[in-house]
Amino acid sequence: MADALAQTKHDLAVANRIVSLEGIIDAFGHVSMRHPTKPDRYLISRSRSPEVVEAADIYEYTLDSEPVTPLPNGIRGYGELVIHGEIYKARPDVNAVAHHHSMAFLPFCNTGTELLPLFHMGAQIGDKVPFWDSRDEFGDTNLLVLKPEEGRSLAKALGPHWLVLLRRHGVTVAAKNLTELVFRTIYSTRNAELQLMTQAQGRPLSPLTPGEARLAWERNLEPRPQARAWEYWCNRLRKAGEFPAPLKAAKKATTAKGKTKAKTRRR
Amino acid sequence: MADALAQTKHDLAVANRIVSLEGIIDAFGHVSMRHPTKPDRYLISRSRSPEVVEAADIYEYTLDSEPVTPLPNGIRGYGELVIHGEIYKARPDVNAVAHHHSMAFLPFCNTGTELLPLFHMGAQIGDKVPFWDSRDEFGDTNLLVLKPEEGRSLAKALGPHWLVLLRRHGVTVAAKNLTELVFRTIYSTRNAELQLMTQAQGRPLSPLTPGEARLAWERNLEPRPQARAWEYWCNRLRKAGEFPAPLKAAKKATTAKGKTKAKTRRR
Amino acid sequence: MADALAQTKHDLAVANRIVSLEGIIDAFGHVSMRHPTKPDRYLISRSRSPEVVEAADIYEYTLDSEPVTPLPNGIRGYGELVIHGEIYKARPDVNAVAHHHSMAFLPFCNTGTELLPLFHMGAQIGDKVPFWDSRDEFGDTNLLVLKPEEGRSLAKALGPHWLVLLRRHGVTVAAKNLTELVFRTIYSTRNAELQLMTQAQGRPLSPLTPGEARLAWERNLEPRPQARAWEYWCNRLRKAGEFPAPLKAAKKATTAKGKTKAKTRRR
Amino acid sequence: MADALAQTKHDLAVANRIVSLEGIIDAFGHVSMRHPTKPDRYLISRSRSPEVVEAADIYEYTLDSEPVTPLPNGIRGYGELVIHGEIYKARPDVNAVAHHHSMAFLPFCNTGTELLPLFHMGAQIGDKVPFWDSRDEFGDTNLLVLKPEEGRSLAKALGPHWLVLLRRHGVTVAAKNLTELVFRTIYSTRNAELQLMTQAQGRPLSPLTPGEARLAWERNLEPRPQARAWEYWCNRLRKAGEFPAPLKAAKKATTAKGKTKAKTRRR
Repeated sequence: MADALAQTKHDLAVANRIVSLEGIIDAFGHVSMRHPTKPDRYLISRSRSPEVVEAADIYEYTLDSEPVTPLPNGIRGYGELVIHGEIYKARPDVNAVAHHHSMAFLPFCNTGTELLPLFHMGAQIGDKVPFWDSRDEFGDTNLLVLKPEEGRSLAKALGPHWLVLLRRHGVTVAAKNLTELVFRTIYSTRNAELQLMTQAQGRPLSPLTPGEARLAWERNLEPRPQARAWEYWCNRLRKAGEFPAPLKAAKKATTAKGKTKAKTRRR
Repeated sequence: MADALAQTKHDLAVANRIVSLEGIIDAFGHVSMRHPTKPDRYLISRSRSPEVVEAADIYEYTLDSEPVTPLPNGIRGYGELVIHGEIYKARPDVNAVAHHHSMAFLPFCNTGTELLPLFHMGAQIGDKVPFWDSRDEFGDTNLLVLKPEEGRSLAKALGPHWLVLLRRHGVTVAAKNLTELVFRTIYSTRNAELQLMTQAQGRPLSPLTPGEARLAWERNLEPRPQARAWEYWCNRLRKAGEFPAPLKAAKKATTAKGKTKAKTRRR
Repeated sequence: MADALAQTKHDLAVANRIVSLEGIIDAFGHVSMRHPTKPDRYLISRSRSPEVVEAADIYEYTLDSEPVTPLPNGIRGYGELVIHGEIYKARPDVNAVAHHHSMAFLPFCNTGTELLPLFHMGAQIGDKVPFWDSRDEFGDTNLLVLKPEEGRSLAKALGPHWLVLLRRHGVTVAAKNLTELVFRTIYSTRNAELQLMTQAQGRPLSPLTPGEARLAWERNLEPRPQARAWEYWCNRLRKAGEFPAPLKAAKKATTAKGKTKAKTRRR
Repeated sequence: MADALAQTKHDLAVANRIVSLEGIIDAFGHVSMRHPTKPDRYLISRSRSPEVVEAADIYEYTLDSEPVTPLPNGIRGYGELVIHGEIYKARPDVNAVAHHHSMAFLPFCNTGTELLPLFHMGAQIGDKVPFWDSRDEFGDTNLLVLKPEEGRSLAKALGPHWLVLLRRHGVTVAAKNLTELVFRTIYSTRNAELQLMTQAQGRPLSPLTPGEARLAWERNLEPRPQARAWEYWCNRLRKAGEFPAPLKAAKKATTAKGKTKAKTRRR
C-alpha cells in the first residue's frame, strides 16, 4: 500500500518532468493528481519548478487545498493550489490537472480567439475550449488564481470540458488519469502551434467535424497509443538524464535547499 | 544471407532514428522498407516510436499487412500498416515508405494549399503533391488509415507521385530506397518550412521551373550527395548517443517492456 | 568580507550564464551589479561573452566606468561600460543592469512599436518601455554606447523605468537586485515574443490594465517566485555543465587566454 | 612552415564546425580559405558535411579549382568548387568564402526581396546584397554552380560586395579572413532572421543609414569584438564535444570511410 503510493508519487514526478522537457512548462506551472485511494485528497509537489520535482517533494492536500499534515519547516506549497482542489471538487471524473503558460497558447489567451481541432491529435482539446477572465468577477487582480472563490469560478468556467484558457495568463488542463493528462497537455499545445501557423498564412481553417473529433479523441486515448507515447517521453527523459531518481534514494538525498545527489551526478 | 537481412534491419532502425532526431517524427509516425530479396514482403517496427526502434523490433509483413509469422506475446504492430502495404502493392518502384505528422506540413494538410518546390533541395517533393481527404470516400472517421480500403484509396491518391498530404492528418512519403526516403522526408520538410516562411511575408512565390525541378531532383539523388547526407545524419545520431546498438547486443537486451541495456547506458 | 565579495562575484557569474543559457545573450551583451558595500562602484566582467564568464573575470569600476585598479596586462574591459556606470549614477535604486540584443526585441527596436504587457509575467516590462535613438543627439554613429555623454543620454531616456529599447541596436534592463534582473530580462523577453506572435495573427492586443500590471509586478517579485525561478535556472545551468566553478578553483585555472580547467573537464 | 599550414587547416576545420553548430550549414554547404602563403591556391575540405570536417580532410586547389595533387583513391571533392575558385580569382582582397542554404535567407532567395541592415550587427551584410539568378544566363539548370562559367558569372554578380544571394538556391559569403567570414556568415543570418520577423509584423522597416552601416561594419571588425566572438564560438564547440581533434591525432585516425577515433569517443 505504502509502496503503491510511492510508485504513484514517482509517476507524478515523471509527469512533471515530461511536460517540462517537452517545453510546455518552464519555472512556473504545476501538475497534480487525485490520491489513488482517497478521492477527497490530491497529490502535488511543494513549490518547485516541475522540471526538478522528485517523488519526495510531493505532499497530500484536502480538496480545500489544505495540507493533510503540516508541511515541514521551510517548505512552502504552490500559491495557486485552489486551481487543483476546486476542479477535483467540481469534477469527480477528473483525476489529474496541469496548469501552465505555454507560449503557444498565450496569443489565444490574450486575444480570446477560439481554439479549433485542426488535426487528429488536436482532437485532444475537446469539443470546446472555454475562456475564463479574472476581470469578470474579480476586477483588477495579479491574475493568479489564489483564493478559493477564484478557483471555484475557474472550475465553473471549465464546466464539463477538458481545457480552459485563462485570459492574459495561461491554461488549465484536466484528464481522467495522469497519462492522459500528459498526452492532452502536449498534443493540445501542438494544436495551438498549428493554429497559430495556419492563421499566419491568412487562409481559412478547416477544423475536424464534431464526428471526426469524437472518433479521433477516442482512438488517441486507447491503451496502445497511450503506452507508446509514454514510453517515448520516458525514454527522452532518460536520455536527457532527467528521469527522476527512485523514491528511496531521493528521500535520502533531497534537502529543503534542493541539493540532491542526482543533480550532483548530472554535472 | 541472414547477415544481410540483419544489416538491412539495422539500416531501417537507423533511418527511423534519423527522421526522429532531425525533428520530423515524434511519438507517432513510422518508417518501413520492402524486403530486400522478397518483394512481396515489407519490414517495419512493432508499435514503438521511431526514436527508440532497434533492429530487433523489426518484423516482416505480407503486402496485405499480415505478419509473416505471428508476433510474440505482448507485441503489437502499428495500427496504420495498410499505408505501407497498399503502397508497396500499387507501386512496384517504391521500396521505402514513411508516414509522419511534421508541424511544417500540417498547415498545408489543414488548408489544402498546394506545395511548390522553392529551392533546389525542395525539388524532392516531386512534380506534384496530391491531397487525400478521408472524408471523400469514408465520411467521419478517426482520420487514421486503418482499413485495407482506406490504404488502397490513399495509394490511389498518391498515384505516380512521391508525397501525398492527408487532410487534417499528416504526410506519406515514398522512395526508391531507404537513403532516398530519409533524404526526401527531410528536404521536403525544409521546403514546407520555407513555403510557410515565404507566404508569411506576403510576397509572391517563385517556384522552380519544371525543368529545374527535374534536374535538381536528379542531381540530389546521385550517389555523392546521398552518401554525404547519410554520413552527416549518422554522425549526428552518434553524437547524440542515438545510433542503434548492433543487432546481436540489441537482441539480448530488448524485452517487450522496452527496457534495453542501450538505454541504461545512455543515462 | 572578502568571502562575501567572492560570493557576490560568483553570483554575478551565475547571472551572466543564466541569461546566456536561456537564449537572451549570445557572444555580445553584458551583465553588471552595483558593489554590495560600496555604492559608488560596480562589478562587471572583463570583455568576454557572458556564457563563459567566471568569478575571476569580474573587476571593480567607478561610476565613471574607470577600473578601480588598472586591469592586468592583456585584459580589456567591455566597450560599452558607460551604459552601466551612467545608469548606476542616475538611478540610486538600481543595483543591477543587463544589456543585450535578444532577437525577440529587435523587431521592436527596429520599427519603434510600443511594447505592452500581455500576460502576468509580462508585467515585468514595467509601466512603460521608452525608446532611445542614438540619431536624435549624436547623428550617424556605430550605434554602440561608448562615450559618457551617450551613456548619460541613454540613462535619461530610461528615466524612472526598468527597460529601455535602443533603436536598431538592443535592450537595456535595470533592476533592484541581481535575481530580479535575471527574472526581468527573461520574462520581458517572453513578453516580447508573445507580442510578436500575437501581432502576426492580425488580431487586436488585450494588454493588462495598469492595476493588473502593478499587482502582477509586485507578486512576481515576492521571495517565493523569485527563489523558485532562481533554483530552476541554476539547475538548468548545472545540467548543461555550465554552472561556474567555485572562485578558488577558477582563480587558479583561468588565464588571460581563456583556457580553464573547467572547460577542459567539460569536453 | 609545415606547422603553420597544419594550424591553418585546423582553423579552417574549426570554422567549418562553428557555422554548422550555430545552425547555418546542414549536410550541404562548404567553407574555404585562400592558401596563407600561396595566393594562387585555396584550401577546402573533401566532399563532407562541414560539421564533420577535420584538418586531415582539407586539400589544396588551384584557382581553376583543380586539386594541386591528385586526390587519394575514393576521395571526392565538392561539386561546386568553382564558387570558391572564381571568387578568389576575381577578388584578390577576399581570403575566405562560405556557401550555404540557411533557412533565414531562403525566403529572400525565393522572392528576390532586398536585404537591409536592420541592427548594428546586421551591418555585416555590407552596403548592398546583389542577387544572382542562374536562369539569366544558363536557363534551366539543376541550380548548382558547377561549371567554370557559372562560377565566373556568380563572381561577377558578387562584384565588390560581400554577400550574394543565389535565387532559389542559397547564399555565398566573402571576407578578408577566416574569423571575419564566420562573423559575417553568422550575423548576416541574424539580420535575415530579423528582417523576416519584422516584415511579418507588417510595419515599415527602419534600416541603418549608410553612415551608420559603415561605422558599425568597421567597429565589428576590430580585433576585440572579433576575438570575443571567436572565443565564444570555440567554447560552444568544446562544450558540444565538436572541437576538431589536433591535426596529428586526426591524421592517424581518419580513413576514407569517415570513421575517426574522435567520433568513437563522442558516442
